[in-house]
Amino acid sequence: MVTIKDVAKMAGVSPSTVSRVIKDHDGISAATKKKVRKIMEESGYAPNIAARNLVTNQSNTIGLVIKSGMHEVNLNPFYSEVNLGVSEACRKEGFSTLTTSATDDASLLAEVKELISSRQVDGFILLYSKEDDPIAAFLSAAGFPYVVIGKDIHNDREAIYVDNDNIQAAVSITELLIGKGYSKITMIVDNDVFAVARDRIRGFEMAMHEAGLSAMGRVVKCGDDPRSISDMLKSLFEDGGPEALLTLDGVLNARIISHLYQMKIRIPADVATATFSDSLLTKFAAPPQTVVDIFPEELGKEAGNEIITLIRDEDKLKRIITVPTRIIERRSTQKEEGR
Amino acid sequence: MVTIKDVAKMAGVSPSTVSRVIKDHDGISAATKKKVRKIMEESGYAPNIAARNLVTNQSNTIGLVIKSGMHEVNLNPFYSEVNLGVSEACRKEGFSTLTTSATDDASLLAEVKELISSRQVDGFILLYSKEDDPIAAFLSAAGFPYVVIGKDIHNDREAIYVDNDNIQAAVSITELLIGKGYSKITMIVDNDVFAVARDRIRGFEMAMHEAGLSAMGRVVKCGDDPRSISDMLKSLFEDGGPEALLTLDGVLNARIISHLYQMKIRIPADVATATFSDSLLTKFAAPPQTVVDIFPEELGKEAGNEIITLIRDEDKLKRIITVPTRIIERRSTQKEEGR
Repeated sequence: MVTIKDVAKMAGVSPSTVSRVIKDHDGISAATKKKVRKIMEESGYAPNIAARNLVTNQSNTIGLVIKSGMHEVNLNPFYSEVNLGVSEACRKEGFSTLTTSATDDASLLAEVKELISSRQVDGFILLYSKEDDPIAAFLSAAGFPYVVIGKDIHNDREAIYVDNDNIQAAVSITELLIGKGYSKITMIVDNDVFAVARDRIRGFEMAMHEAGLSAMGRVVKCGDDPRSISDMLKSLFEDGGPEALLTLDGVLNARIISHLYQMKIRIPADVATATFSDSLLTKFAAPPQTVVDIFPEELGKEAGNEIITLIRDEDKLKRIITVPTRIIERRSTQKEEGR
Repeated sequence: MVTIKDVAKMAGVSPSTVSRVIKDHDGISAATKKKVRKIMEESGYAPNIAARNLVTNQSNTIGLVIKSGMHEVNLNPFYSEVNLGVSEACRKEGFSTLTTSATDDASLLAEVKELISSRQVDGFILLYSKEDDPIAAFLSAAGFPYVVIGKDIHNDREAIYVDNDNIQAAVSITELLIGKGYSKITMIVDNDVFAVARDRIRGFEMAMHEAGLSAMGRVVKCGDDPRSISDMLKSLFEDGGPEALLTLDGVLNARIISHLYQMKIRIPADVATATFSDSLLTKFAAPPQTVVDIFPEELGKEAGNEIITLIRDEDKLKRIITVPTRIIERRSTQKEEGR
């Protein structure tokens, strides 16, 4: 194994000069940097990452913080794809990742603190955004680098946010449904606490209002258990029922169309369906579902790149990065064919 | 921040003694160890992981190697769940993970070699098992620690394998279908190269043979494009068609039932369906699908624990760990109700 000392000898400089070249120090001339780098390359010198981490006092690891209270959240394809994007961005820059495992706010906060004090991570990505979050509050107060995938709901923190424009996404998909001739549209949600849910509901209501269809639009909330979904759908379709259903996300959508199948309600012949967040759950559904693709992998990649930049340059300014969305039309809203 | 020097001063010993206590060296008396540890605890000393890694020459990072040629593979819920299990096991032991990004065998091998030479990982988990795999061959020859999630197809390597018994899983699900009165059963597969596919096909054929139904059982292979699936299903259902379909895995199953919906073939009234690998794709399908649950998160956890043990004890013997499977019956095979 070629060492720093070997490289120094070959280049005719001191080992500390080589070390400074590796760190891209300002005090070294461009000519020396070029010479040393050439020798490093030719000699096959591979820096010992643990040694470099000690010098730079970095772990080259990013901590992913998962919403407390939800282990299952990871099974949502949205998070798998975000994870994929984060890993890719990190891998390219020589960073690895670890994921928190605590399931309540208090132990999650303890876990985050321990990861910082043992210097196991250089920064965090929060995979959620919610009001009064103790983790974000702590990181913010401690001045520790973090990026949030989600909405900037506070406006006063020096954090970086990576998000979609969920209001606009909801407006677009609602306008698509209206444009296809549906007017009696019901939006089904299973939570209205997280920022993303609130924004999608708001966008739906805005578009219905804009089209003069406020009286035809309804937002219905269901619980998490199958019985609550089944009861809600039965009462919804008792007399007439809506012409189209817009669901809060792809997982809820799958649950809804699974129940509709059981109720022998055909899509799109009897009711059209559309949702947010594309995945295998919507692409290979029966029938394939019209969705707003929110590009979770892009959200992950952007968050990964941002946190690494932030770690390298702590003076980086707060910013909000908005990842675009696009509508994918599939059979679930093809009115003509169904009827 | 309390340093090793501070602890040494407080304990009245040299810094190197403290360092040896941290590494649990044999040359230090039990009394000294006890005293130093007490002071470390009281003073709130947190070891610098980068420093410890340098001393132990470890990165405390596990590399996950993804099948070459498949970026999309990561979208299969099976891999997301395996990942979840690996992350959990690693996190508990203070390890982080990184995932390879190369998409062909040659650059994947180069990536693996570079991760080793730059000491970025202490060991690998291969998320697949295939014949003549250059990565496994290289790691094996280099004596670098690795664990395979998949079948021990070689028998001559000193590796650890974590897998399900896929032959037995296929026998069980086929027997379930036969027990429910289905005899004309078709198994649909989209690959027959990987060990897992071969074993599931073999189990299906064994169970059909055992029941004296070999003449009624068929294995049909389809391509990856929607047209190939659609053509295959059309010809399959042209005259009569099978009473039950067994698909190779949950993703293929979703694609098949999406096409059946379009063809207005009802499940289970017109045909029963069953598959392998439980996920949201099967649980929230229209209708919910009968599956063999193969516990991907358990596979991941076991692999994570095994690789860490292997890193810590290189003399660990080769072994095969078999994670059990279980059948979950859902509406897709409820014959009575459907007809």
